[in-house]
Amino acid sequence: MDRRRIFAASAALAGIALAAPRLVLAQAAPPAASAQAPGFYRIKVGAHTATIVHDGFVRVAAVPPTFVRNAPPEVVAAAVQAAGLPGPGYDNFFTITFLQTPAGLVAFDTGTGGQLGSATTGQIAANMRAAGLDPAAVTRIVISHFHGDHISGLTNADNSLVFPNAQVLVPAPEWAFWMDDGQMSRAPEAMRGGFANVRRRFGPYAAKVEQYAAGAEVAPGVRAIATHGHTPGHMSFMVADGSDSLLILGDLTANPMFNLTNPGWHVVFDMDPNAAEATRRRIFDQAATDRTRCVGYHFPFPANGYIAKTADGYRLIPALWSSVV
Amino acid sequence: MDRRRIFAASAALAGIALAAPRLVLAQAAPPAASAQAPGFYRIKVGAHTATIVHDGFVRVAAVPPTFVRNAPPEVVAAAVQAAGLPGPGYDNFFTITFLQTPAGLVAFDTGTGGQLGSATTGQIAANMRAAGLDPAAVTRIVISHFHGDHISGLTNADNSLVFPNAQVLVPAPEWAFWMDDGQMSRAPEAMRGGFANVRRRFGPYAAKVEQYAAGAEVAPGVRAIATHGHTPGHMSFMVADGSDSLLILGDLTANPMFNLTNPGWHVVFDMDPNAAEATRRRIFDQAATDRTRCVGYHFPFPANGYIAKTADGYRLIPALWSSVV
Repeated sequence: MDRRRIFAASAALAGIALAAPRLVLAQAAPPAASAQAPGFYRIKVGAHTATIVHDGFVRVAAVPPTFVRNAPPEVVAAAVQAAGLPGPGYDNFFTITFLQTPAGLVAFDTGTGGQLGSATTGQIAANMRAAGLDPAAVTRIVISHFHGDHISGLTNADNSLVFPNAQVLVPAPEWAFWMDDGQMSRAPEAMRGGFANVRRRFGPYAAKVEQYAAGAEVAPGVRAIATHGHTPGHMSFMVADGSDSLLILGDLTANPMFNLTNPGWHVVFDMDPNAAEATRRRIFDQAATDRTRCVGYHFPFPANGYIAKTADGYRLIPALWSSVV
Repeated sequence: MDRRRIFAASAALAGIALAAPRLVLAQAAPPAASAQAPGFYRIKVGAHTATIVHDGFVRVAAVPPTFVRNAPPEVVAAAVQAAGLPGPGYDNFFTITFLQTPAGLVAFDTGTGGQLGSATTGQIAANMRAAGLDPAAVTRIVISHFHGDHISGLTNADNSLVFPNAQVLVPAPEWAFWMDDGQMSRAPEAMRGGFANVRRRFGPYAAKVEQYAAGAEVAPGVRAIATHGHTPGHMSFMVADGSDSLLILGDLTANPMFNLTNPGWHVVFDMDPNAAEATRRRIFDQAATDRTRCVGYHFPFPANGYIAKTADGYRLIPALWSSVV
């Protein structure tokens, strides 16, 4: 029996002996608008307003068998199922956080620029417009790390500036690694494109790039936290005002079903898997203890919530959506 | 040490000996728009398009000590904490589901009408507008049960019609109970207002009210399921098209942290607590087994997801938000 039949049967068993109502049907109304609601979500962090903006997603038809270095594919597939997804694939989401500060509008990362070969990415422009955020009003972009899905949105397909008035803050150790021509020449073939993309995207901003160190105040009330491992200079950011705070995780985990549930898994994108795992456990433990609201770059929209410790890992408690900012 | 200090310290420990960057601040940009994104979310159910619309919420400052009849207040408070909320209160959300069908636009319940004394309710009109849904285009309203937060949106404060072109389908056993003057006269004082509200809200629709029984097809492809207990005639609805389906739960649980996590708790709003519990377990078991997508009237927006069985109850796996309908 399919599910409709089962429900119909249980309804009939519990039912009442009345005839089905006579259905007087009006003429069909014109179809309602069919588009999804815009992908932005606002929260207050003390006096700051943060706007979390969706840049779309890449549909991964099936988790590649090599995706987790230290777990067999069938165990990874089971995790997708346990997350309630029909499987075997999942959506990889991209999330840019904006913060309105006394220093102007600050962006944390820039998204894909819609240039990763998937038609479902590159929604940041439309969603910024819906949220009343003008790219020309962005005065500062703070970059977490140099992977393509975080920096490609700096420039358009013709490499012109998307954010014409923005200073670009980059992690010093990240810059040191990716801008080192020796590293580039020694890199495996699969990483060469990444090095080229870094040079391409930052090129037009050259005079506006400034390096920052761990611990730096990258915007008023926002501290950079060294969370290296995913990449050599990966950073996260703590926004704080009074007793209120928001931890911008960056890529401490891909989709939460992977590295929140299984913090010991070494996903192929982690350049130093052991350092990435140690960083992840340290930050997730702290965030769980402090009940810090977190936003994750690859979390499902609206991509924010709380981290709770479980017997053998962590889980995401999505923050309750509120219509009141 | 507060959380900022702890993070700053750990950042410093892991940090790199570079000076903080020189922060060249641009002039502050004009503040971005501050309103929340509109509260609607669309999903496909086979060829149908469902639009889940947020009608706002009531902020409950603290869970009343009598809220759960058969669990002590400190255990209930712990459940709020376990759900990741700062506690002791929570938000009670209201959710109307619309379905575009060949018979026109169908609404499942009507919300609060913004007439429950809370300024944060009554958002349905604005959110319908944002979603391109016109109240005049609603050809049918299917009511799950007669509690005030489900039927008060039928009429405005002056009791004029909100949905001028809608037929109103009501559960036959619900109508039999609430329209019985004997029941009204025997009801405890606290319930008298509920009886009066039923008469008031359905009055202007009198000629358009039609009763339906469990098992009835209340709209094309939509079956009513008897889920009595919360009220004498409470109904849920299964929308199905091909192998795709959506179960509109109604009030099988208040906020999921109560009766999903603890299906045995008897919340004060359940009129027949034992029947409500039996119904809840039967439907949740089925939905978990079948992996049926569910929408819950009091779930946090966008109020849809999957139910999973746990050792001693159930949990909600929120559906992953998708920008593609």
